[in-house]
Amino acid sequence: MYTDLPADQLAAYLGSQQDPEDFDAFWAQTLAEAQAHPLDVRLERVNTVLSTVDVWDVTFIGYGGEPIRAWLRVPAGASGPLPGVVQFVGYGGGRGDASENLFWASAGFAHLQMDTRGQGAGWSKGATPDASGSAGPQVPGVMTRGITDPQSYYYRRLFTDAVRAVAALQSLDVVDPTRCAAVGGSQGGASAVAAAALAPGLAAVCAYVPFLSDLPRAVQVTDAYPYREVRDYLSVHRTQAERVLGTLSYFDAVNFARRATVPALFSVALMDEVTPPSTVYAAYNNYAGTKELLVWPYNGHEGGGIEDEVAAARFLQGLLAVS
Amino acid sequence: MYTDLPADQLAAYLGSQQDPEDFDAFWAQTLAEAQAHPLDVRLERVNTVLSTVDVWDVTFIGYGGEPIRAWLRVPAGASGPLPGVVQFVGYGGGRGDASENLFWASAGFAHLQMDTRGQGAGWSKGATPDASGSAGPQVPGVMTRGITDPQSYYYRRLFTDAVRAVAALQSLDVVDPTRCAAVGGSQGGASAVAAAALAPGLAAVCAYVPFLSDLPRAVQVTDAYPYREVRDYLSVHRTQAERVLGTLSYFDAVNFARRATVPALFSVALMDEVTPPSTVYAAYNNYAGTKELLVWPYNGHEGGGIEDEVAAARFLQGLLAVS
Amino acid sequence: MYTDLPADQLAAYLGSQQDPEDFDAFWAQTLAEAQAHPLDVRLERVNTVLSTVDVWDVTFIGYGGEPIRAWLRVPAGASGPLPGVVQFVGYGGGRGDASENLFWASAGFAHLQMDTRGQGAGWSKGATPDASGSAGPQVPGVMTRGITDPQSYYYRRLFTDAVRAVAALQSLDVVDPTRCAAVGGSQGGASAVAAAALAPGLAAVCAYVPFLSDLPRAVQVTDAYPYREVRDYLSVHRTQAERVLGTLSYFDAVNFARRATVPALFSVALMDEVTPPSTVYAAYNNYAGTKELLVWPYNGHEGGGIEDEVAAARFLQGLLAVS
Amino acid sequence: MYTDLPADQLAAYLGSQQDPEDFDAFWAQTLAEAQAHPLDVRLERVNTVLSTVDVWDVTFIGYGGEPIRAWLRVPAGASGPLPGVVQFVGYGGGRGDASENLFWASAGFAHLQMDTRGQGAGWSKGATPDASGSAGPQVPGVMTRGITDPQSYYYRRLFTDAVRAVAALQSLDVVDPTRCAAVGGSQGGASAVAAAALAPGLAAVCAYVPFLSDLPRAVQVTDAYPYREVRDYLSVHRTQAERVLGTLSYFDAVNFARRATVPALFSVALMDEVTPPSTVYAAYNNYAGTKELLVWPYNGHEGGGIEDEVAAARFLQGLLAVS
Amino acid sequence: MYTDLPADQLAAYLGSQQDPEDFDAFWAQTLAEAQAHPLDVRLERVNTVLSTVDVWDVTFIGYGGEPIRAWLRVPAGASGPLPGVVQFVGYGGGRGDASENLFWASAGFAHLQMDTRGQGAGWSKGATPDASGSAGPQVPGVMTRGITDPQSYYYRRLFTDAVRAVAALQSLDVVDPTRCAAVGGSQGGASAVAAAALAPGLAAVCAYVPFLSDLPRAVQVTDAYPYREVRDYLSVHRTQAERVLGTLSYFDAVNFARRATVPALFSVALMDEVTPPSTVYAAYNNYAGTKELLVWPYNGHEGGGIEDEVAAARFLQGLLAVS
Amino acid sequence: MYTDLPADQLAAYLGSQQDPEDFDAFWAQTLAEAQAHPLDVRLERVNTVLSTVDVWDVTFIGYGGEPIRAWLRVPAGASGPLPGVVQFVGYGGGRGDASENLFWASAGFAHLQMDTRGQGAGWSKGATPDASGSAGPQVPGVMTRGITDPQSYYYRRLFTDAVRAVAALQSLDVVDPTRCAAVGGSQGGASAVAAAALAPGLAAVCAYVPFLSDLPRAVQVTDAYPYREVRDYLSVHRTQAERVLGTLSYFDAVNFARRATVPALFSVALMDEVTPPSTVYAAYNNYAGTKELLVWPYNGHEGGGIEDEVAAARFLQGLLAVS
Repeated sequence: MYTDLPADQLAAYLGSQQDPEDFDAFWAQTLAEAQAHPLDVRLERVNTVLSTVDVWDVTFIGYGGEPIRAWLRVPAGASGPLPGVVQFVGYGGGRGDASENLFWASAGFAHLQMDTRGQGAGWSKGATPDASGSAGPQVPGVMTRGITDPQSYYYRRLFTDAVRAVAALQSLDVVDPTRCAAVGGSQGGASAVAAAALAPGLAAVCAYVPFLSDLPRAVQVTDAYPYREVRDYLSVHRTQAERVLGTLSYFDAVNFARRATVPALFSVALMDEVTPPSTVYAAYNNYAGTKELLVWPYNGHEGGGIEDEVAAARFLQGLLAVS
Repeated sequence: MYTDLPADQLAAYLGSQQDPEDFDAFWAQTLAEAQAHPLDVRLERVNTVLSTVDVWDVTFIGYGGEPIRAWLRVPAGASGPLPGVVQFVGYGGGRGDASENLFWASAGFAHLQMDTRGQGAGWSKGATPDASGSAGPQVPGVMTRGITDPQSYYYRRLFTDAVRAVAALQSLDVVDPTRCAAVGGSQGGASAVAAAALAPGLAAVCAYVPFLSDLPRAVQVTDAYPYREVRDYLSVHRTQAERVLGTLSYFDAVNFARRATVPALFSVALMDEVTPPSTVYAAYNNYAGTKELLVWPYNGHEGGGIEDEVAAARFLQGLLAVS
Repeated sequence: MYTDLPADQLAAYLGSQQDPEDFDAFWAQTLAEAQAHPLDVRLERVNTVLSTVDVWDVTFIGYGGEPIRAWLRVPAGASGPLPGVVQFVGYGGGRGDASENLFWASAGFAHLQMDTRGQGAGWSKGATPDASGSAGPQVPGVMTRGITDPQSYYYRRLFTDAVRAVAALQSLDVVDPTRCAAVGGSQGGASAVAAAALAPGLAAVCAYVPFLSDLPRAVQVTDAYPYREVRDYLSVHRTQAERVLGTLSYFDAVNFARRATVPALFSVALMDEVTPPSTVYAAYNNYAGTKELLVWPYNGHEGGGIEDEVAAARFLQGLLAVS
Repeated sequence: MYTDLPADQLAAYLGSQQDPEDFDAFWAQTLAEAQAHPLDVRLERVNTVLSTVDVWDVTFIGYGGEPIRAWLRVPAGASGPLPGVVQFVGYGGGRGDASENLFWASAGFAHLQMDTRGQGAGWSKGATPDASGSAGPQVPGVMTRGITDPQSYYYRRLFTDAVRAVAALQSLDVVDPTRCAAVGGSQGGASAVAAAALAPGLAAVCAYVPFLSDLPRAVQVTDAYPYREVRDYLSVHRTQAERVLGTLSYFDAVNFARRATVPALFSVALMDEVTPPSTVYAAYNNYAGTKELLVWPYNGHEGGGIEDEVAAARFLQGLLAVS
Repeated sequence: MYTDLPADQLAAYLGSQQDPEDFDAFWAQTLAEAQAHPLDVRLERVNTVLSTVDVWDVTFIGYGGEPIRAWLRVPAGASGPLPGVVQFVGYGGGRGDASENLFWASAGFAHLQMDTRGQGAGWSKGATPDASGSAGPQVPGVMTRGITDPQSYYYRRLFTDAVRAVAALQSLDVVDPTRCAAVGGSQGGASAVAAAALAPGLAAVCAYVPFLSDLPRAVQVTDAYPYREVRDYLSVHRTQAERVLGTLSYFDAVNFARRATVPALFSVALMDEVTPPSTVYAAYNNYAGTKELLVWPYNGHEGGGIEDEVAAARFLQGLLAVS
Repeated sequence: MYTDLPADQLAAYLGSQQDPEDFDAFWAQTLAEAQAHPLDVRLERVNTVLSTVDVWDVTFIGYGGEPIRAWLRVPAGASGPLPGVVQFVGYGGGRGDASENLFWASAGFAHLQMDTRGQGAGWSKGATPDASGSAGPQVPGVMTRGITDPQSYYYRRLFTDAVRAVAALQSLDVVDPTRCAAVGGSQGGASAVAAAALAPGLAAVCAYVPFLSDLPRAVQVTDAYPYREVRDYLSVHRTQAERVLGTLSYFDAVNFARRATVPALFSVALMDEVTPPSTVYAAYNNYAGTKELLVWPYNGHEGGGIEDEVAAARFLQGLLAVS
């Protein structure tokens, strides 16, 4: 059912998120610190049951000099240069199994699926720790891990990993670094938008039902997790709302969208209780580049599912001239 | 949590299902009627975003002379003869999208994914009607559609479709008809076991957490749907229990397992509330061929997920000499 | 709690449903096809425990030449002519038990309670199949059975049965055909409104909390089943919304209400989550005849319950001069 | 699903309830106190929409000299003497509407439906207060009202009302006092069994899925309300278990069953979570008169529904020679 | 999540409750009747494990001449005169254990915690009956006990007890009667506001997330219990809405707030589904004395929890000059 | 309701947990590493509203040299030496507010309430980070943080903090180090039992409904969180069961109980779904010192609540000669 803004207000909604004055400085400093560590991309060929797709177990150095795992899947025997897709996954999940998620490689892309630090024990498995610890009390999950300071917040680390993953993909021999895109749904969509704003040389972005958008509104208009984690935290730490919302402003897809200019495809689901449609429209409407939006009137947070992915593949094949 | 039999009893459990006297006659007649219709396999090439997998939209004639849809996916440009896999899907789902479910073709198989008549509007979409109607009052779903008579029961039609799908796969130029297997999970697993018992020339079967096993027990030891549909029906049609259980005995995986002799891989999940482990053991323990069992102690009905599929691929690659 | 429109907007709400151009032609053709089959009303006396009410097991020919079951209950020994009431039942139910539902006969009416094809295994039992099959993939239930085309949609069959049931009632010796009414709640209320628009010679209609009203809004403003079945379908068959809503426009109580002119009694419950009050007001406000509305401010979908029935009996006794 | 004892143990189960030494004395004193008040049965004819059933609003004096309401329904114009049925209703309900529940009168009985003091605002409405107050802290509901002492316990009052209702029925001109039965389901079934043990001159009893049976077990083997009220109470008043269970022993259907000798019909539902089947078997197996049991293997607390009622009517028509 | 009025409307909301003409007369008569009984405060020293707080088991005469229990806790050995706090507890609870709830005594107050008649078997135990009985059918709980008449309504008794508790506290040797406050949350907050309006000589009031405020709106804007009890009642007793709402107007915190002039501290939680924020604002905005409001934007009905209590202690220590 | 072992088996149940060979070596090494850091206890007086209890904000060095927060509450102005109680809190909670939880100080103890690293944003707030990070993928919560290796497991850090908290308490001037006890419920109870086994010089322990007991059984017999976190992890990381259970064996209260010899008070609740009673009996029955058990037959995980605490205070006052 519809519980968000009326249709006409939705389409025009610009969000409630403010731009912190030092947003760009914060991210410049964060990425500079990360760049102090070499990327150190390592690939180990994985022996799978597959014959049309080759898979490598990838490690690169993400935030804090910590190793981040990923899968690289490419059409079997491809010599490249291929267009590349880096994919970020949704909340709770990890990079999954080497033999899963064959869509992007089967569509002709070099496909790097980044693991999610400290997650990967929910709907798909992972292998990457979040070595940095909690920095304070927290609600179960990662939404409030380190939330009292942008410097210690979990998503500072994850988004830095995402930017590094783009560089890792671009560094591969089999990849044409000028034809790389970031894709993902929900948390993966937020990561993709962050990468679109922060990663040099990215050519396009696809974000399905992105999470972490218009956070001041999001935490007030849904009871669904993971946004609910923030409410849970503030219901106990009652005096920290301003500080917590201040931290979140550095990680809001709305603010990344204002800075991202590569061609973009978004999707939004009008019955989505996890990432309410108004919050997605806020990111989309602020997006600074050329953009398209897929609207799914009768879907919840599953959004367009495979239809989002097929649309993304067509969008990227058109843009990146996949042969 | 564990709510079924203790571990030692589980492993030895043989089930409560009886073999109806005319089980073989019933199925011989059913399949003979179906064979009166030509198989009439039609393939139409589908234009997808994929480059490593070729996809065809398949139609063949199933039960009652009715057209059944399927996807055929093969490694791009393969000329065969390839080993073949026919896959049956779980309750509520259909054949899904042409560009989904690339695992089996990517593993080198000709992969025929059969649609599920009259379902296909739940977790994945379908395109095949169940033209035969309800034959009586029924609970929403298909578990009680026509349940007062084996002749009119829904699964008579679906399992006939499954047997015909095996023949359709075997008839394809790209396929080696002596190296074909049936696979599936839950309802798909029950369909695979039925096909293993009924379809001539099948070489192997993989059934993950099969549904429709040991039905007299199943309807008493879980409240979860879809087994619950039978209870719901009998709670209203209070005097029909004997008749309904009589019908079900013609469709129980336990009875198919007693008749199937091709090599088999099963899986069971010990915290499965949808297809309780004892019911799966009943099918496995009665299975008449060589067999292996994957036991997942901490899983529910998701069973082994991708790990079931990878194990099945290795099992079939070993048996069917995939090059 | 109140989740629908504010009180003043509710009372004036006219709905969002459009009138398809060929609505009248569609129903004229449908009923003409049905009339090709003789009504063939058969009665068989039922031996019950009752002494004040006589019961017959009735069969008449409904849509597609298919036999439809019903109960006829009349005051014991009544010779007529009596005023008649045909009652349609709610979603999931059937005609129930011969000895149930004695209200209308006890109130002096010849009471024909029509069975619901293919339902009757939910809250009350039935005995009538829906022989026509699914015509496509569908969500469990009947809301999406054949929903891609008005010709194949389930409610085309049910509403035709309803119109035929009126004729069957009118044809009985014990009944005065000029003093017959249609009554029902929820799905039964929708059927009654459809009958009021389509059945010749009906004298009145009573519809409690009618279902299938203002469907474009209904599928967007509640998560409750059975409206939810439509959303579930469209969440998987994402591109069919226009087609599905097109089909539904031929079966919307709002459109029947525009064409019905016999005296009518409606009821609406302001906390109804199954048939939200705005959707009921849409039907009521468009109703073309004289009309009354019972408003239950603190009820959910149970509406006025026995108080709706008593009010309906008084309304009909007044109109139809029950002696 | 089945969660109670295995089938063979169920059928033989005798319960865990002890017989308090002064059980008979307690009830003799209780009823003697009640008899100090004249029965004072008053009838007022109700103007309804019904023509085959006449209805009177009845008041008689129950426990504590307090007026208890009831409906009397008889076949229209009946002069008697008729066999009589007094019906007690389930937890939360009251006597309902004058025009509801026409089954027993339509089956030829003088039907007295007793209201339930202080309930009657749940699934059916009532009109009778429970003037005696709470006697102590209590959980919402009546299960723990006055539970620390048999003298002050709610069911002392209700069961006394039930015994008085039998006398009220027997006192009516239209009734043959030697042909009266008590019937009811759940709480009504417990009341009927209590009346069978305590009311002089009763000729038969029908108890569907009776509540308040084998209470020491009942409060341990289900989480469902209303048995749960006792657990809730004891979870707060942790030291009162012995006292509370002591009180309950005076009101357990098992103990009444040991003392009742009129012919009895019981029903039990094997998936009943509200009155678990073992507790019902405990009452049935201890019942001291000739008895029959209807077993519903796939039902929950709805039991046999109308089929219980029809069976009861046939049972009573046979016993009481209804003409 | 936010489901109530927008922020700006919330802050200005004045409620929908009307002032019954004879509100003051009703309460004057009620309290006069109570004053016919002597207060008869009795204290019995309790032997606890505590050494810094002395506890007495208190009994005083409340409504109807009935004994009401309470705990008195004071700093060990205090000779007074101390400022006093009378605390009323939330729905379902009682005065709890002698050794619990040490906050107010530890903060230097003589702390009288009043038991709640007929409750005290929910989240904390009690020991006080509600001797007056139900006066009519009722929903489980106390919200509809006697609801058809202000004279018989449960809260007439509870609020009278509350006023008497203030007098009992003021009468104690250890207490300075000019420095006494009433505090409580939810039902306890409503009781405190009632006491502020009705009890002579009270010096201040603290009401956290008060219940029973703006009842006409409350019963329409939340499905949560206990407000839901009123809806449940009216959904069965459909014709009694006017009468029931008439009764409630005598017990609405909005009407007490209009009459109370002592300094007040309120709290409101913006995600409170039990006492929706608009209803609390209605009481606060109508409050006739000086007032402060704590707003908790991310809390549900737990409100400010210990932070409400600490704020209340500081507020009262400032007002009442606690040394 | 009862879902665990029958009563007689419960009372004798010894658990399924094995003692790892190097359990003692593991903990000896762990504590030795911790002792490399000075305890460095710091106290800062807190300004509260309280007058009978003095509160200090305490910091001491726990596992890994990291600062752990606590509250110290003592009777106002006490000079000691007092008996001491260190309290550990339940899952999700932190040390709470300075002005809460006054029971132990009011009972004459020096009461140190230790914060819970990285928790403290659930039912009570905390202030202590868990600096060590996740060491791998994890389910939200702490149950699987670092679970693949005893060295990195979360509870290695928490239990080390607990042992250090005992030393911190013992080091205080106001405390008699020979009269100190550890208390706690659930996770706090497990921590207390661990401290009883590992902390030198402790005089007694009280563990209410202890968590982390008989973990191999616990993760199989309940679906409730937090034990469920382990199942969730293993349902995704399907091949790690042996490793994970190996890790857990170093942290099982059963193994600590085998090594603890100070007088102990336990409590168990027979309807506890969070820490099922069999698991608590396993710890109790293995406990190596003199011991008492409070059994709450009708309680869930709330156990004895305040009655557990009062019993604990009496138990400790007796043992530790509180004056």
